[in-house]
Amino acid sequence: MVKVMLLGQGMAATVFAIGLERIKMGEIEPYGIPLEKYNFPIDIKDIKIVGSVDVDARKVGSTIYEVAKDIYGFNNVPLPLSDIKIYKGIEAGYVKDIFPVESLDMDGYEESLDKFIYILKMLKPDVVIDITTTQHSIPFHDFSLLEKAVLEGRNVIPSQIYAYLTLKYSEEVRKVAYVNMIPAPIANDKGIVKRAFELESLILGDDGATGATPLTADILEHLNERNRKVRSIAQFNIGGNTDFLALINEKRNKAKEYTKGSVVEDILGYDAPHYIKPTGYLEPLGDKKFVAMHIEYISFNGAIDEIIINMRVNDSPALAGYMVDLARLAKYCLENSYYGTVYEINAFYMKKPGPSGSRNISRIVAYNKLLSFLDGIKKFREKIRV
Amino acid sequence: MVKVMLLGQGMAATVFAIGLERIKMGEIEPYGIPLEKYNFPIDIKDIKIVGSVDVDARKVGSTIYEVAKDIYGFNNVPLPLSDIKIYKGIEAGYVKDIFPVESLDMDGYEESLDKFIYILKMLKPDVVIDITTTQHSIPFHDFSLLEKAVLEGRNVIPSQIYAYLTLKYSEEVRKVAYVNMIPAPIANDKGIVKRAFELESLILGDDGATGATPLTADILEHLNERNRKVRSIAQFNIGGNTDFLALINEKRNKAKEYTKGSVVEDILGYDAPHYIKPTGYLEPLGDKKFVAMHIEYISFNGAIDEIIINMRVNDSPALAGYMVDLARLAKYCLENSYYGTVYEINAFYMKKPGPSGSRNISRIVAYNKLLSFLDGIKKFREKIRV
Amino acid sequence: MVKVMLLGQGMAATVFAIGLERIKMGEIEPYGIPLEKYNFPIDIKDIKIVGSVDVDARKVGSTIYEVAKDIYGFNNVPLPLSDIKIYKGIEAGYVKDIFPVESLDMDGYEESLDKFIYILKMLKPDVVIDITTTQHSIPFHDFSLLEKAVLEGRNVIPSQIYAYLTLKYSEEVRKVAYVNMIPAPIANDKGIVKRAFELESLILGDDGATGATPLTADILEHLNERNRKVRSIAQFNIGGNTDFLALINEKRNKAKEYTKGSVVEDILGYDAPHYIKPTGYLEPLGDKKFVAMHIEYISFNGAIDEIIINMRVNDSPALAGYMVDLARLAKYCLENSYYGTVYEINAFYMKKPGPSGSRNISRIVAYNKLLSFLDGIKKFREKIRV
Amino acid sequence: MVKVMLLGQGMAATVFAIGLERIKMGEIEPYGIPLEKYNFPIDIKDIKIVGSVDVDARKVGSTIYEVAKDIYGFNNVPLPLSDIKIYKGIEAGYVKDIFPVESLDMDGYEESLDKFIYILKMLKPDVVIDITTTQHSIPFHDFSLLEKAVLEGRNVIPSQIYAYLTLKYSEEVRKVAYVNMIPAPIANDKGIVKRAFELESLILGDDGATGATPLTADILEHLNERNRKVRSIAQFNIGGNTDFLALINEKRNKAKEYTKGSVVEDILGYDAPHYIKPTGYLEPLGDKKFVAMHIEYISFNGAIDEIIINMRVNDSPALAGYMVDLARLAKYCLENSYYGTVYEINAFYMKKPGPSGSRNISRIVAYNKLLSFLDGIKKFREKIRV
Repeated sequence: MVKVMLLGQGMAATVFAIGLERIKMGEIEPYGIPLEKYNFPIDIKDIKIVGSVDVDARKVGSTIYEVAKDIYGFNNVPLPLSDIKIYKGIEAGYVKDIFPVESLDMDGYEESLDKFIYILKMLKPDVVIDITTTQHSIPFHDFSLLEKAVLEGRNVIPSQIYAYLTLKYSEEVRKVAYVNMIPAPIANDKGIVKRAFELESLILGDDGATGATPLTADILEHLNERNRKVRSIAQFNIGGNTDFLALINEKRNKAKEYTKGSVVEDILGYDAPHYIKPTGYLEPLGDKKFVAMHIEYISFNGAIDEIIINMRVNDSPALAGYMVDLARLAKYCLENSYYGTVYEINAFYMKKPGPSGSRNISRIVAYNKLLSFLDGIKKFREKIRV
Repeated sequence: MVKVMLLGQGMAATVFAIGLERIKMGEIEPYGIPLEKYNFPIDIKDIKIVGSVDVDARKVGSTIYEVAKDIYGFNNVPLPLSDIKIYKGIEAGYVKDIFPVESLDMDGYEESLDKFIYILKMLKPDVVIDITTTQHSIPFHDFSLLEKAVLEGRNVIPSQIYAYLTLKYSEEVRKVAYVNMIPAPIANDKGIVKRAFELESLILGDDGATGATPLTADILEHLNERNRKVRSIAQFNIGGNTDFLALINEKRNKAKEYTKGSVVEDILGYDAPHYIKPTGYLEPLGDKKFVAMHIEYISFNGAIDEIIINMRVNDSPALAGYMVDLARLAKYCLENSYYGTVYEINAFYMKKPGPSGSRNISRIVAYNKLLSFLDGIKKFREKIRV
Repeated sequence: MVKVMLLGQGMAATVFAIGLERIKMGEIEPYGIPLEKYNFPIDIKDIKIVGSVDVDARKVGSTIYEVAKDIYGFNNVPLPLSDIKIYKGIEAGYVKDIFPVESLDMDGYEESLDKFIYILKMLKPDVVIDITTTQHSIPFHDFSLLEKAVLEGRNVIPSQIYAYLTLKYSEEVRKVAYVNMIPAPIANDKGIVKRAFELESLILGDDGATGATPLTADILEHLNERNRKVRSIAQFNIGGNTDFLALINEKRNKAKEYTKGSVVEDILGYDAPHYIKPTGYLEPLGDKKFVAMHIEYISFNGAIDEIIINMRVNDSPALAGYMVDLARLAKYCLENSYYGTVYEINAFYMKKPGPSGSRNISRIVAYNKLLSFLDGIKKFREKIRV
Repeated sequence: MVKVMLLGQGMAATVFAIGLERIKMGEIEPYGIPLEKYNFPIDIKDIKIVGSVDVDARKVGSTIYEVAKDIYGFNNVPLPLSDIKIYKGIEAGYVKDIFPVESLDMDGYEESLDKFIYILKMLKPDVVIDITTTQHSIPFHDFSLLEKAVLEGRNVIPSQIYAYLTLKYSEEVRKVAYVNMIPAPIANDKGIVKRAFELESLILGDDGATGATPLTADILEHLNERNRKVRSIAQFNIGGNTDFLALINEKRNKAKEYTKGSVVEDILGYDAPHYIKPTGYLEPLGDKKFVAMHIEYISFNGAIDEIIINMRVNDSPALAGYMVDLARLAKYCLENSYYGTVYEINAFYMKKPGPSGSRNISRIVAYNKLLSFLDGIKKFREKIRV
């Protein structure tokens, strides 16, 4: 069994929980889950959500069932979700602008850290998935500096605090995996990854690669393999979910740029002029964002070609589908003694694949790398079994 | 040196000739030529066009320079093209509807076959590239049946006649490669490939994979790797060059459908409902076609997403860039004793990769297969050199 | 009250019936109904569907409620629709390729004409709306020739037969309006319109202008007002409803072209090269068609600009919204002694506005013409009231 | 003759000058000039550019010919442009971030005002066209407050200074028209328009309505006339000309938003959620910007439809084509005693039509209003002639 704890009970975490249960009940096909094309040893049905934390006062103390009802309507929410509790998370002053923060937070910063450790010890997750609201930060690259910052509560964002505490829990209790789906530097923080390795734990991240970025990666690879010279890339994103609302804040938008920007140069080998940014918030679009992209390139004999792409993509389901895989992969790595971080996984699932300094590669190439990695483990297991 | 003979001095062949010379003169960068990203042993400058055939009465007897002038304007055409003659080809009654056919054709069908053999013997090409106007036909899969049809001049299209005669020349004079850029079944004809193998010659084809189809292949692969269920695919193409004009003819349109259709099932593993067709002719668009594509798919938890792609693509330069590679690859294969046909090359460059029965794979995967193939030869050569 | 009889209980007629009842019940807003922006004297609630005819054996003898259930699901269909019966229509051999035709049709052609007259006399509609499957035909322009053809049952399509019989009914019983929503030449048939005028009846048509064509009209007008020279127009349509299925038949496709083609020259004043056609059938798209359009034009100082439009449009609701207006307008015209046909109405609502020889004008201009026409009647009525 | 003086010798002014001469020479057709569809009494050939001002040190003292050469290449620039001088304009500290400002500006602010008046008196223009770089400001609505601000050189932007000085010149010398093509509040400043009226002069503006905004206006009108309820509008613009570079500056972006925002509510009658903004700068796109737009609306019976528009539009030629009309219209108004400002002209050509408080109307409606206005004058002239 894969015991999963969720950080941030927003849209993506909720769709993850709903979809997971519906698949278990045989109600829907497992579409949007990459490894379902591959005969992966851990079944989806073995994933169990053991709990969740959030900082929205309207959610804390409730269950995922209650949150799901507001999104999906009364009748459709799978009943098992009523057993999964939402605990109070750590806010640290970062999301007050987005939603009503837990008013009970007055019990103090230190206490909130203790409580989180307590929840971890109680739920005993194998995998902690961070799907909190985007925050901007820079990596510490040194675990002791991170520790100092966390303890002082200064210049650290919730994701860094959560990752630190999760490793603390790992130190005391059992090995664990921390999967970071948001654009905070966790798997790209050398200090965190090193510490995880020492503790025989695992960090996967950063920033789930759904939506336009991975498709852009594959299209750029497509052009590059034909030696077509990219002259310019413009990519716009607009949506109406909390993620886009959060990006109105200039600092968070920076965080997103940080994970998106590297794709172009990593894949093309030169920094083609580009404008790639989450652009705006437009409430009625909801979770189904609109993406517009324009690419101009030079073909043979100086000819100028153009590609224009427009997408309507449901953001949360795309992420949620990845989470199903990442939970299983994380557990599988721990079981097979892969610690620290695993580039072969990050390269496919993440926008800014850790460890720090890693290159973005085209997704189709990354996919084949991932399959080779998994085949390697499989063969090794078969061998030692004999 | 790679001696290339062109069949069909249309737009693509002319852009090929112009671009080749401009690259030799250092006037332009070698954009649009896939292998320029790879350290390929044969330099572009080693390619030499030795002659061309066509059936347009306005071109026969002239030089590529004269044809190029009409397309590119007086001042820009590279001078060396004035040395490359255009000989009379074999019409066989297939393109009368498109352009003024050589009136001299009255010297009879048999004579035209003899003359073509004569031209081959005179020019002694290493590689013959077929870039004639699209014709619809079915493969014979038996060389003696093809031979009979050619000699009788019944139920064969020019490409089949050319391929047959080129192999005849190979039998008498030297080994040769025939590269088929159009949607006629040549590399997918078992009889032709078998005969080429016996003669230590080579067939590459069929139908150069430029434009929307290879990009579609990569996008479908992208979706499939994420187990997104494709609900429908619509793809429209419209352009104003001879190729599109030819497709107004229902039979030729069928030829195109034949090479395009297999992509969907080959890559997805199921036959998603699709409408993929060259759609119409619109003269002012010229060689720069307009492509519109719509893909709808199911993501996690039943969410419906959409991708819309619009392109403006210069058809001929895209093909011409491939021809630069295929001429070199064909020669390289002959030198390294690869005969019959080579799937690793066809899979990347062709819409309907031979040999008959081959699967279409995503282009990014095909590209990596191609590089592995080339690396294999390289290593072998290094080894035997030692 | 406006008593409406429907010809062809397909998707559009069914959505019309559902939407009408939902508006009456206050369940939805009257979106998609042009005149709801205008203070029109006849309220939507005054429209009453009195009956319907169809030739699909699965529908005849049933009610609109039963048909609607299959489209909308059990729970949502308004109950009043269970009172509206579907009678047997006239097939005349035209739609056998599309759906299971009423097997009872064996009672003979002449009998089927008599029965239709009988239904009209029983239902006593004010307005008959023709929303049958697209058929190709040419106008007779002479009522006696039409009569002869109808009586012989030769070279007439169902719409022409229905229109003829409706005027017969008008002759015997009361004045009536026939609204033709499909691309058959009814309001463009001089003979039919003349006869309607003599009978103080009304013909509106032809071919409801929803979807891409009216938008194209307005965009072309936009360009033309700036003297931008249109170089080319490509427009593709693909959908999965019966209408698109029917268009696979080459003849019906011609009917569509006939009503679509005139827009370009009528609005621009010159025949810009264009390709405007319903392109294909793709079942999963259902009633929500996909439209792609490309327009290239010359701006000041020879600059070349491009507009690309992609749409997802629900075909049937768009038509159904117009039907709400046309039913009211038709009755209003009869009440105010407008007979024959009314260009001011056709020009806004129809693709091929009658009477024969009329020009297509931009929709925004047509809209203002329509309002002026209505204002004119209003003022006249106020005057005579005083 | 219409003597035109240009403020800001950037791309648009230069294309205007080039195109004007090429039309005079019969080299090109007058595409992109709206009134060329109308038999307007003043011929394009009667327009004469008498001079220009700029603040770019590289341009001042030179001629339009020199500036045009850099854009168009040596051979193509019409020779007459070598007679048109570029004088020093007023910078007032506003465009230092965009380009090298005239270093001679040290002669002081007051002196620069005097010099501008001197240039006006020397060139004696009928029409002054302001096509300077976008600046953000608010209207004074009181001429004496504007005067005070100009004299003190505080809180006024160049356009306000230029407009003030042009009216001063009008007071002393002759009546004049000031046409404001940029998003500064000139024709929307009650004080300026009132003063122009008193002086029998004319102000036209503000902000030339080219590109996506007027097309959006017509599409919204199209939807509104069908009572389709717009749910959301997203519009992105990205380009590589100075105008877009200038918009990186947050304040200037605001100026643009100010003139763009009102379209939605003015036309629909309700404020549909929208995101309409110039989005970014991407140098390789040059003057040919990329526009992406997404509109979602509710049709009949609650159906949701979508329109996506992508454009490649040459910004400067579009504006330049309007300038040809506005120069003529301005002169024509002065000749026929239309003073202050003329809404009928502004409503068609401008994004934020003056006078202050005016409503944006759909462009197609505005066009017909403009023609009626011109017809009215024509008829009046014919009458008094008799």
